[in-house]
Amino acid sequence: MFPGIDTGTFAGPPAATAVFTTVLTEGPVSRVALARRLGLSSAAVTKAARPLIDLGYLHELAATERSGPGAGRPASPLAVRAEREFFLGVKITADEVIGVVCDLRAQVHASARRSFDDPDVDAVLAEVGRLADDLFDTFPGDRTRVHRLGLALSGDIDRGIGLVRYSPFLHWRDVPLGRLAAQHTGLTVTVENDVKALTAAEHWFGEGVGAESFALVTVGTGIGCGLVVNGRLVSGSYGVAGEIGHLTVDATGPDCHCGGRGCVESIAGTDAIVAQARDRTGRPDLTIDEAVALARGGHEQVRAVFTRAGGAIGCAIAAVANLVGPTRIVVSGEGLAAYDLFDSHIRTSFERQAFGAAARCPLSIRPLPFEEWARGAAAVSIQSLVVP
Amino acid sequence: MFPGIDTGTFAGPPAATAVFTTVLTEGPVSRVALARRLGLSSAAVTKAARPLIDLGYLHELAATERSGPGAGRPASPLAVRAEREFFLGVKITADEVIGVVCDLRAQVHASARRSFDDPDVDAVLAEVGRLADDLFDTFPGDRTRVHRLGLALSGDIDRGIGLVRYSPFLHWRDVPLGRLAAQHTGLTVTVENDVKALTAAEHWFGEGVGAESFALVTVGTGIGCGLVVNGRLVSGSYGVAGEIGHLTVDATGPDCHCGGRGCVESIAGTDAIVAQARDRTGRPDLTIDEAVALARGGHEQVRAVFTRAGGAIGCAIAAVANLVGPTRIVVSGEGLAAYDLFDSHIRTSFERQAFGAAARCPLSIRPLPFEEWARGAAAVSIQSLVVP
Ligand SMILES: [Zn+2]
Ligand SMILES: [Zn+2]
Repeated sequence: MFPGIDTGTFAGPPAATAVFTTVLTEGPVSRVALARRLGLSSAAVTKAARPLIDLGYLHELAATERSGPGAGRPASPLAVRAEREFFLGVKITADEVIGVVCDLRAQVHASARRSFDDPDVDAVLAEVGRLADDLFDTFPGDRTRVHRLGLALSGDIDRGIGLVRYSPFLHWRDVPLGRLAAQHTGLTVTVENDVKALTAAEHWFGEGVGAESFALVTVGTGIGCGLVVNGRLVSGSYGVAGEIGHLTVDATGPDCHCGGRGCVESIAGTDAIVAQARDRTGRPDLTIDEAVALARGGHEQVRAVFTRAGGAIGCAIAAVANLVGPTRIVVSGEGLAAYDLFDSHIRTSFERQAFGAAARCPLSIRPLPFEEWARGAAAVSIQSLVVP
Repeated sequence: MFPGIDTGTFAGPPAATAVFTTVLTEGPVSRVALARRLGLSSAAVTKAARPLIDLGYLHELAATERSGPGAGRPASPLAVRAEREFFLGVKITADEVIGVVCDLRAQVHASARRSFDDPDVDAVLAEVGRLADDLFDTFPGDRTRVHRLGLALSGDIDRGIGLVRYSPFLHWRDVPLGRLAAQHTGLTVTVENDVKALTAAEHWFGEGVGAESFALVTVGTGIGCGLVVNGRLVSGSYGVAGEIGHLTVDATGPDCHCGGRGCVESIAGTDAIVAQARDRTGRPDLTIDEAVALARGGHEQVRAVFTRAGGAIGCAIAAVANLVGPTRIVVSGEGLAAYDLFDSHIRTSFERQAFGAAARCPLSIRPLPFEEWARGAAAVSIQSLVVP
């Protein structure tokens, strides 16, 4: 029924996938609740669960007593055995690989990072291999239970075939990264855009669990967005979706590297903030850290740069709320290390621009530890086990 | 299996709904193709289709000969009997009701319109009744086959319970229009937002057929958008979705009636265009028709108003493409009566602002006959027969 599950194929019938996905993302669930939720008979749930139990992916928790009128057999909730399998997740940036080992519930058991100079694909893959060695040095679990590797990087990625169409930071074009990494590591490899990977992690294991629709906005060098609508990640008919960085918010604003004008990223991306702060201070070597320090120290003109950036981000988030109406929006990313300078301006602008009841959409604005990106990569790998 | 279908309940099993929806929206399909498409066995398709044939909703076309190696029985495609049932569709504006009679495939068999002065709900419903009489006067089909009425109007509508939460043009709040209209007419009534209704018509019977994702942008007094993503209409967790009229496209632009700033509607809505044209010409009584005539006659400053409006609409459409990546986008609405003044500016701005491959999304920009809104209302009524 699940041939070769340890070598990377979880080819279960739809009912098994549905049962496993529900228990995995929502925690222990009784068979009765599963049957009701999934529109299956109790017998079908039991049949679907049996091979998953036999293979060690699910187990039955001790029966909990039920009381009250009509109580039948005590319910024995099904739960995931998180340590049945482990997953490597690696985020690749322009000069660093960041990795984690996660269990089936995307809990991190080890993390490590390595920097590199040479963005050549083979050199980067060799670095990923060394990163894996570093991870296994500190990973306390069973290394033989690792069969899958998730890779995440920014750019235009075709997840279906593991192809990096274009990575601007690494200057890669049409690199079959999934195939190359599989040859290099012997693992089953997934490749996904980093923002989409992070969205997958939030959707299955974070604030997005159970949400029919959900958005994750990332703020940093780029400004991106992952969207879940009607329960599924939005991927875009032409491979483009969630590109909030290039929404026009100021028709008379600066030209953007994308060819557009007044884009969110041209006002609120890290490079744009640095450029504006240099301009306002007359200091052509100012760094982002120095700009943050000046703003925190009360430098009015540099503060105004962050105020404008927060306003642009808030408009972009309102655009997401007005267009697709997600149940909740998480705003995160390394740019929010300067959280204190952005937070109130993002919220003010969002509230002004969200239309009517769209303003009721809760925003979670929080910094993002860099390891979270690697966890996102691992989450996609977990998804590929469950939903091939 | 389909109890009381003639009184408004098509309570078929999921397979019957899937078979009927596919044949209805895509035209004649063979059982073999249906089975393949829907992941059903041939026997299941036959079983699902039988009661639909018995009730006269589907019929078998004459068998087409098949040739070539491996050809089995000749295929007899299933087709919808469009005239099995007819539907009234009525769009309600601030001062007019526009109605059509459509068949099951949303083809218009009669149309009529009546104006009114009194926006009181009972008065408007009485007008709808008179409109129905007008329609039946010219409708050549079988009047006893009309059991359903679809109503569409702009505003905040809860389709599920037929409630008009708020209609700004009619000044209605929390009007249970579905229930009142059912009492008044004896028909089974649906109520939907007009833009969503139009989107439903395009999705099932127009340019959106077969598209996994699809957007319809309407331009006029308001600027709206209906979105289909992952095959389903996006309705928004808080009831707000597709509100492209209130995306900020000019941070230093005019204040908008919504409380926002530089919204698309504050630049490109009909009222905004008239206000700007009055301002540029110093003629405080200028109408939209006069503004269009001046622009067409070469009045540079009035032309600039339409150029700016087209630019704002193009940015908003690009935002849709960048965020959700629809397969195609239709731009329509009564505002496009001045199509020639907008078209090239919408396209230029869209192409500049669409990110990468998102620019490949085809735009259909076309004026919208007013009866189309009423056809949208009928399409929702047809949907309610098929998918309760
Ligand atoms: Zn841009
Ligand atoms: Zn507005």
